[in-house]
Amino acid sequence: MENIRYDENENKLYIIDQSLLPNEEREILLDTAEQMFDAIKKLKVRGAPAIGICAGYCLYVLSTKINAKNTDDFINQLEKYADYLNSSRPTAVNLSWALRRMTSLAKKNKALPMEEIKRNLLQCARDIHNEDIDMCRRISEHGLTLIKNGDGILTHCNAGPLATSKYGTALGPILLGKERGMEFRVYADETRPLLQGARLTSYELYKAEVDVTLICDNMANTVMKNGWIDAVFVGCDRVAANGDTANKIGTCGVAILAKHYGIPFYVLGPTSTIDLNCKTGADIEIEERDPEEIKKMFYEKPMAPEGVKCFNPAFDVTDAELISGIVTQNGICRPPYSESLTKLFK
Amino acid sequence: MENIRYDENENKLYIIDQSLLPNEEREILLDTAEQMFDAIKKLKVRGAPAIGICAGYCLYVLSTKINAKNTDDFINQLEKYADYLNSSRPTAVNLSWALRRMTSLAKKNKALPMEEIKRNLLQCARDIHNEDIDMCRRISEHGLTLIKNGDGILTHCNAGPLATSKYGTALGPILLGKERGMEFRVYADETRPLLQGARLTSYELYKAEVDVTLICDNMANTVMKNGWIDAVFVGCDRVAANGDTANKIGTCGVAILAKHYGIPFYVLGPTSTIDLNCKTGADIEIEERDPEEIKKMFYEKPMAPEGVKCFNPAFDVTDAELISGIVTQNGICRPPYSESLTKLFK
Repeated sequence: MENIRYDENENKLYIIDQSLLPNEEREILLDTAEQMFDAIKKLKVRGAPAIGICAGYCLYVLSTKINAKNTDDFINQLEKYADYLNSSRPTAVNLSWALRRMTSLAKKNKALPMEEIKRNLLQCARDIHNEDIDMCRRISEHGLTLIKNGDGILTHCNAGPLATSKYGTALGPILLGKERGMEFRVYADETRPLLQGARLTSYELYKAEVDVTLICDNMANTVMKNGWIDAVFVGCDRVAANGDTANKIGTCGVAILAKHYGIPFYVLGPTSTIDLNCKTGADIEIEERDPEEIKKMFYEKPMAPEGVKCFNPAFDVTDAELISGIVTQNGICRPPYSESLTKLFK
Repeated sequence: MENIRYDENENKLYIIDQSLLPNEEREILLDTAEQMFDAIKKLKVRGAPAIGICAGYCLYVLSTKINAKNTDDFINQLEKYADYLNSSRPTAVNLSWALRRMTSLAKKNKALPMEEIKRNLLQCARDIHNEDIDMCRRISEHGLTLIKNGDGILTHCNAGPLATSKYGTALGPILLGKERGMEFRVYADETRPLLQGARLTSYELYKAEVDVTLICDNMANTVMKNGWIDAVFVGCDRVAANGDTANKIGTCGVAILAKHYGIPFYVLGPTSTIDLNCKTGADIEIEERDPEEIKKMFYEKPMAPEGVKCFNPAFDVTDAELISGIVTQNGICRPPYSESLTKLFK
């Protein structure tokens, strides 16, 4: 499965339409600027690195369609395309970064013949892509040293190949290990409200034939308590200078549970997500989204692959040491409960 | 709002059809044994105490329709009705308990005229109902001593009036306090996969004009970390002799978060849920349910009241102290991160 595929013979760019997953794996052609804009805006391609990679190829394909009088005109038209694509998701850093890298190259190359500029633009798009593959592979290699064959790994949200290039970040060590014949048991939090864990993570791992089990977010405690988890791997959106890490809602809760059970909790991501100008997590502003995401269910179709395993315990047990009081009609029992509860019945 | 209402003048039993909530609040008539069976089986009435209360009135209404030759025949027919109702949800303890209480009374009364037996059956159904109201009120009074005006309270799943009689258990102190002019800020976990928190808890509190905010389960950490929560109140399904408490999946995770933030965590329930024969939580068997509940969304309509407040942060921040390592393409950083992260860029 290649989420972004540039076909040199056809000079055509194809992506897997992520908005149709996990129910349909369909490659769509991005041939016009409007199709490209629409694909980014409507999350057909998503994940910051994947958007950057896609944008590089998009701008190259558009450059081959430019009918220019001269190099200045060519660069001018190229920048207009870049501005247009950039407006599809204004806050995606990798989008503007990749587009700027492409247009800067063209400007530096403006003494060259137009055909040579275009060849260099294609090389630049490929560099962006290959650098991401290389980065993910290196993260995966480092991450793989943290786990051993047969380990149980919990992950939250989606930081896999669909969001990046090959391997991904948090899922990278698992997929790289799988390539080398290692087997892991992975537990994927569904990740409410938008269910990236169910729709994407469980899909990616299931396709890769990794032993994956989908759980609701509130079941992470049970799989840890059952002794099934050896490590937690998550991605990151921003890492402050002191190590405080912003990631999908629910990540911090998972980290507290991991600490409670003595399970190591690892954050995986490129150095570009580390922001030394941001001193601590308190400096990170948290986006608040539409309440309708909680109140209504946007996925009318199944939200996980049909064959994927699930673990669906209806209840859990809260250890007495975590309970401050048990309130009954006959009064409030306090620890130690073995005494206070018995007294209730005397 | 009365979830179960017996109208003496009409001799008719009405319930709020909980399966239509939160989109429609409709009272339905339970007049035939088939309607009653269907209502319990299809969760139109749910919550162990509510099922018990409903079953008492059901059996009384059915007793008034019996055309018997003599008292023995009457008791015989009554027991057949009880067996039939009891088969609607075989595992609901309160259902069989209430039906047995009614039929035992009839058998004890078998020397009396049939009309007097029926009067006593109505009184028994009312006793079951009133005892539950009294129990919930006493739990609520005790619970109310644990919180003060203006407090923020987090709750998980549903343990309110719909599941019991008036007040409920975990929601009891909040509703009793509201009656007395106190105001609380309540945060309701939506409680995946079946969303009892969204569909029922947020509905009950919203109707009662309590300041309620619906969150996804994985957002409980954020509201605690933000300092918005003074206490956690949850119900219980079974309490072991040592205080270990079984309740809806996700409860234990909430308790661990509460401990991390130094927030008291209270379990509220009747003494009938305390099982001294069960030594610890390890003796409690956990029901595992259908994976389809996770993979598919059963609620096509909105799953929370239209006007209810939601809090929907997209990300959270994991404190550095909870992170065992940060894995980048250039290596694994270990605490203290203020040193190891900076070194990455040198």
